[in-house]
This record gives sequence, C-alpha cells and structure tokens, in this order.
Amino acid sequence: MKIPPVKGTRDFYPPEMARHNWIIDGWRKASLRSGFEEYDGPIFEHLSMYQLKSGQEIVEQLFSLQDRGGRDLAIRPEITPTLARMVNQRINALPRPIKWFAVPRLCRAERPQKGRLREFFQWNIDIVGEDSGQADAEIIFTTLDYLRMVGLTPRDVQAKISSRRLLAAVLTSIGIPAARLEALYAVLDKKPKLPPETFDALLAEQVPDTYQAEKIRALMALNSIEQIAGIVEPNEALAQAVDELRTVLDILNAMGMGDYCAFDPSIVRGLAYYTGVVFEVHDIAGELRAICGGGRYDNLLRDFGGPPISATGMGMGDCVLEILLEQRGLLDKQVPKRELEYFVALADPQAIRSVYEIAARIRSKGRSAGFSYRQGGLSKQLKEAAGQDARICVIVGQEYRDKRQVVLKNMGTGEQELVDVEQFLSRLGS
Amino acid sequence: MKIPPVKGTRDFYPPEMARHNWIIDGWRKASLRSGFEEYDGPIFEHLSMYQLKSGQEIVEQLFSLQDRGGRDLAIRPEITPTLARMVNQRINALPRPIKWFAVPRLCRAERPQKGRLREFFQWNIDIVGEDSGQADAEIIFTTLDYLRMVGLTPRDVQAKISSRRLLAAVLTSIGIPAARLEALYAVLDKKPKLPPETFDALLAEQVPDTYQAEKIRALMALNSIEQIAGIVEPNEALAQAVDELRTVLDILNAMGMGDYCAFDPSIVRGLAYYTGVVFEVHDIAGELRAICGGGRYDNLLRDFGGPPISATGMGMGDCVLEILLEQRGLLDKQVPKRELEYFVALADPQAIRSVYEIAARIRSKGRSAGFSYRQGGLSKQLKEAAGQDARICVIVGQEYRDKRQVVLKNMGTGEQELVDVEQFLSRLGS
Repeated sequence: MKIPPVKGTRDFYPPEMARHNWIIDGWRKASLRSGFEEYDGPIFEHLSMYQLKSGQEIVEQLFSLQDRGGRDLAIRPEITPTLARMVNQRINALPRPIKWFAVPRLCRAERPQKGRLREFFQWNIDIVGEDSGQADAEIIFTTLDYLRMVGLTPRDVQAKISSRRLLAAVLTSIGIPAARLEALYAVLDKKPKLPPETFDALLAEQVPDTYQAEKIRALMALNSIEQIAGIVEPNEALAQAVDELRTVLDILNAMGMGDYCAFDPSIVRGLAYYTGVVFEVHDIAGELRAICGGGRYDNLLRDFGGPPISATGMGMGDCVLEILLEQRGLLDKQVPKRELEYFVALADPQAIRSVYEIAARIRSKGRSAGFSYRQGGLSKQLKEAAGQDARICVIVGQEYRDKRQVVLKNMGTGEQELVDVEQFLSRLGS
Repeated sequence: MKIPPVKGTRDFYPPEMARHNWIIDGWRKASLRSGFEEYDGPIFEHLSMYQLKSGQEIVEQLFSLQDRGGRDLAIRPEITPTLARMVNQRINALPRPIKWFAVPRLCRAERPQKGRLREFFQWNIDIVGEDSGQADAEIIFTTLDYLRMVGLTPRDVQAKISSRRLLAAVLTSIGIPAARLEALYAVLDKKPKLPPETFDALLAEQVPDTYQAEKIRALMALNSIEQIAGIVEPNEALAQAVDELRTVLDILNAMGMGDYCAFDPSIVRGLAYYTGVVFEVHDIAGELRAICGGGRYDNLLRDFGGPPISATGMGMGDCVLEILLEQRGLLDKQVPKRELEYFVALADPQAIRSVYEIAARIRSKGRSAGFSYRQGGLSKQLKEAAGQDARICVIVGQEYRDKRQVVLKNMGTGEQELVDVEQFLSRLGS
C-alpha cells in the first residue's frame, strides 16, 4: 500500500534539508547578533486564541482538531498569539525590553501555489515593551541584516516602510471617521494585488466622496515624507506620526541600511492588529509576493488579557525567500555541501576490528567518520568513500598490523602520507 | 481575555529554549559525526499511514484532523512511517546504505505524566539497505556516542540488547507456533512494567503449557548469550541468531562501547514491526522510563508499498533524557549561558547616531551587539549591559568626537582600554 504525502507539504530529503537548515541558521545568526533570544511554543493552541485577533483570512485557514477531552485546538498559523500568551504569563518576571525571536513551523489550509504552502517556516523577531522608534528600526535593521548576510543587495530587495499612525492622521484630517479606518486599511492593503479599476471600485465602496478618494489615491502614490504637506494641512497628530517615522528612517540610515529603505505609504499590512510603523520587504523586480512584513502592534498583549504594553515585530516565511535566493543563485553558492571528514578503509581483512575502533575514535574527537559495511577490495572502498564525499581516507593495512601506522589519502589531491595512528588521532584534538 | 496553553505541551522561554537547542544540537553532532544525513517530513500525514503499521497504542493516541477537502490527516506521532514513504518514493535514486537522521516534533494524545508529554521531540537515526549487524552496531554506537558526549557514563546508563530473531528461535524450539509470536512479544514487552503475578497471569493466557511458560521465564532472566544453551537444544536458526547478536556486541566492543552494553533477553520492544536486533537504553538506577529504543525492522518499507529492503533504527525522546540530564547536573554545567558580546554605551548625548552605527558594524562582523533604548546616564547603561550579560562595553564618549576613539570596558574584570574605533572593528574580522 503506497500512501502519498499531503498536498501543500514538503519532504526535506538531505539536499533540501541542507538548504532549509542553512536558511534557519542564518535567521538564528542574524537574530542573535542583534541581541534577540530564542523562544518557541507548542505546535497547537486553543482554537479560541486565533479567533480572538488573527483576522478573518487566518481563521478561515486554520487546521483545527480536538483533544481527547473534546477541547477545540488548532495548529498554529502564526506565532504572535503564542508570544502574547507567553509574555503575558510572565510579564512581571521578564526584564524589558523583551527581544525575542523564533523560527516556528506553521500551517495554514491555503490553496497551495507559488510561494504559498500549507506548511512553512517563519522567522519571527519581536521587541516588547519599547515605545520608541528605535525598536522599530532594530526590527527592520535585523531583517535587512539577514537579507544582506545571505547576499541580497539593494538592487535585489527593498524595505518599503510606512506608518498606520501616519495613515490615520492623514485619513482623519480629510474627514474619514476613525471607526471606518480598519475596514479602509483592509482595502488599501489589497491595492498592489488588484487591477486599478478593481481597486477604485473597492475604494469607492468604502469612501463614496470623490474628493476624499482622490486624496487617498494621491497619498498612496507619494514617495517621500515631505510630499505629505502637499496633500493635507499640517496638524499635531500628523506631525507626531511624521516625526516617529523620520526617526526610524534616520536610525536605519545611521545603521548603514539607507540604501535598502524607502518610504512607501501604500504599505498598510493586512492584519488588524498593527498600530504604528509598518513595513514589507519586496523583491525589486516585483515578481514575487512580499518576502516579509511587520510593524508595531501596541494593543495585542492587552487584547490577550495582559497589561497595555507596546510591541513591534516582523515575520518572514521560508517559501518566497527560497525562491528569490534560488533565482539569484545564492543557494548553490552558499549552502554547505555534504562532507564526510574521514572514511576508514580496510586493506588487510584481519584488521576489521581496527577499522571499527579507529572510526569510533575519530568520531569521539568530534570529527565525522564512516567505513564500508561491505569490506570489498580497497578500490571499491575508495569509490564508496568518494560517493560519500569523503575528504580523507584512512587506510588500515599491513603497516597497521606491523607498526600501528595508517595511510592518510587526500581524496581531493590524491596525496598519501604514512602516519602513526596515535599521532594522527592526537592531531584531531580532544 | 486570557487563554491558557494546551495541557501536555511546553512553552520554551529563552532559558528552556537554550536547553532544548543544546539537546537538539548534540543529537545533530552525534549523527553527523557518524555519517548520518538529516531529513525531515511534514508535521501531518494521511491518517491511513499510521493505521497501517504503527500499532494499536499509537493509533489510539493520534491527533487527527481534516483538510478542507475532507481528507483525514493526523499530526505525526512518530517519523518512521514518513521515512518509509520518503525512501520508497526515491528508492532507485538513493545510494545505499541510506544513513539518515531527524529530530522531529511529534504529538501523541497521551495522558501527560512524568517523562511523557503530548508534544515532544525525538531523535531518530536509521540505516536502510544494510542487512549486516554492522548497521545495528552503528545505530547503537551512535546512540551511546551521544549519551557519552553529554557526560553520561556506564554508571548512569546501559544499553540492553536482545534480538527478536533469537527470541523467535528459542520460542519456536520450545513449541510456540510462529503465528502466536507477535501476541506473545506484546506480553513479554510489558514484563518490566508489571508486578510478577500480573505478568505470570498474562503469560499463562498466551502460553497455558506450564513447561513452556517456565522456559520463557528462564529465558527472560538470562544475562549472557552463553546461558541460552542451558535452556534449549542448539539448532540452525538459533545458531544464526546468536551469531548475529554476537557480531553486534563484538563490534560495539571494538568501538569502545563494551562497558555500556549488556545482553538482556527481556528487551522485546512494543512495536509490531521489529524483526531482528532490538535494544533499549535505561538509566542504571531504573527510576525512569527507557531513554530510547530501537531495532531492526526489515519488512516495514515493503509494507509501505516499497521493495523488500532491510532497515534498523533508533528513537530517543527529549523528555526522559532531559529529566536524567537534570538529575545528574549535566544541563547547568553544559548548556551555554546567554551572552551579548558587545554593549555599545553612550557617554556623549550628541553621539547617539554613532552608537547605532557602531552597533550595526559590530553585528555585520558576525558578533552580537546591543545598546540601550533609554539613553540614560552611563552608569544606568552599564547596569543594563550587565543585565543583558554583556561581555564588553564599547563606550562612545568625548574621545569619539575628538579622535574616533572608544573605551572598551571588560565587564568581567572591569579593565578599560582606549582604542581607535576602526582598529577595534577591524580586529573583529570581516
């Protein structure tokens, strides 16, 4: 009986696993060097946790299940609710700001398509308990620091940065009631994915006033913060929002990321919980979905039953990222190849126990070692060693029985060296 | 609204995550140095995959769910069925022997108790396509190599090794029909967990003949292979099984693991699919459940629709292991502590942009760096640095504005050094 894998999931055979691990390791490195600490939560949570704040799209895509007591659970579609739960549980014991990262496996029952799978991995970085733009800048810096580390340049990717607070200040000042902002954000977020006529029609539903709609279209098209003055009259809320966003961009400039960053008021983000600075990183060619996105969500922890504590964060999935890295040839160049450091070969049938012993001792020194389970002739074993990408063959032959010497054969150059086995092993360290 | 975590799951806050990562890293190291390659599969598979061969206990503990098309899925309770599926899918392309490892997250709807959770991680190593005892020995060696690496000695743990083939040969030769062996194995596997009277009653149900039952009890109590001759007459099948087991023990001796290993015919393993050598590692004190178990399962790939290919493997969960390591004080000693390499402190309010720049440049050299979001006085910042376990403070003050010099303060010794910032940065490498 042959059973296929589930649609929209991936099998990681060793070559794919090497790529996957290289991506996860890079996420970890970038997080750790910016001072984030790793956390993780369970693969499932109570279903109600996601119904609380995750937004309609995510709720529709939940994989839900029941435990034996009949409680409704769901496989996590994002980790932010878990973060909120965990932080709230220990809110008084955790020194702030809390700088945490995670690399969770997530599941969403989406229609599988390019860059979207039902199971994926997502890098998350979050700073909890810091109001200032420094935290937003740290999040964006760390994101870009990773993308730069793996070889993506400002010619490949751009961080498009905006602010919900800024958007709210402009929209309010042209007469949009605060209560209608959330619904309007959902429409504005769809703009890049829609034909202009469709967007205009959707916008007209939300904003029937053509003067207001025109202002909104003009706002979406701006490419510098200075131009806002050409659209609306200055006011206190707007000035504060502009200041905050400028601070973030200033810090990113000081941190050497200016070339990667641009103000883009069309960035709104789909999730309901964002409150301040928001951003997405896109490929410059505009061929792919967003590589990542994030922003400030100052009310979420309170919504999860905690105290009012500000937070800002970012999530980056592995699927779009991997497509882009593959396109740019950055995977083949950088993902470490399989390598076996030592292959212990047998050239004296009586020495088989010594092969086991030497392989075991090499391993106990922290180096990788293998040997053939076949014990055919030496040339067959060397071929097997090459098939396993062995770097050096340790040949155990007649010299071993006589003088405890082995031949080290460099599989790259073919060079050979006869050495005392104890000396060879002690060279490997302890 | 406050939502609790699901019962039987764990939250990994940074300190627990550090322990968890240290365990996973150790599993990876031990696997790689024995020449295993990493793979992984999806967190869920078609439900039918687990109904096929996993055995009644596991099937009862499945977390099952449906996808949007109404297909029955289950969160993986073990990864061996996924391994069988993946190997079968590419059976002709994969060079043999296949030596693979994985560190999957698994879920079972068990009653949570000491050493058993509903969600856990399990180290798996498997060798597919190798009949000889060398493969069994490699599996047991790699298991013990890990346990030794983390500091467990033969005074802490023991690998109890037996063989289903040997058991079958003995049982058949005393007159147990082959068709009744599987049911009998299930009873024998329960022996260590049951009071003697309960075991005797269960055994009597399976084996009413008191002579046969007596022989079985005598077999279970043996502690050397030689003693088998005192129980049953020699025969061909028995001689082969004894030979095979001796080979495995011999290789383990040659590999330096003799002190960790003992023949123990009471090891049977619960899963139905084992066919040859089986083993478990237990704490010597006998206080905990088995730390791990494994063995040869030569029919599983065929049962999953593939060709008849032999296989042998091992699975080790993280829960019992962590309890034992904690008991022995091996976690606190070895799990790396949190550390921030550099904390960039501000002693000149005008130099704030330089703090951002220097922190970013340290990070881009691959070193970890942080700074205060508060910009209070220097002593406050040094306190914050200490709270983040910073090793060195880079103090940006008046000397920086005048001469591009910073003070490096060793947070351990208190020593200070005034250095040119470019020289300091170039010391960090590229």
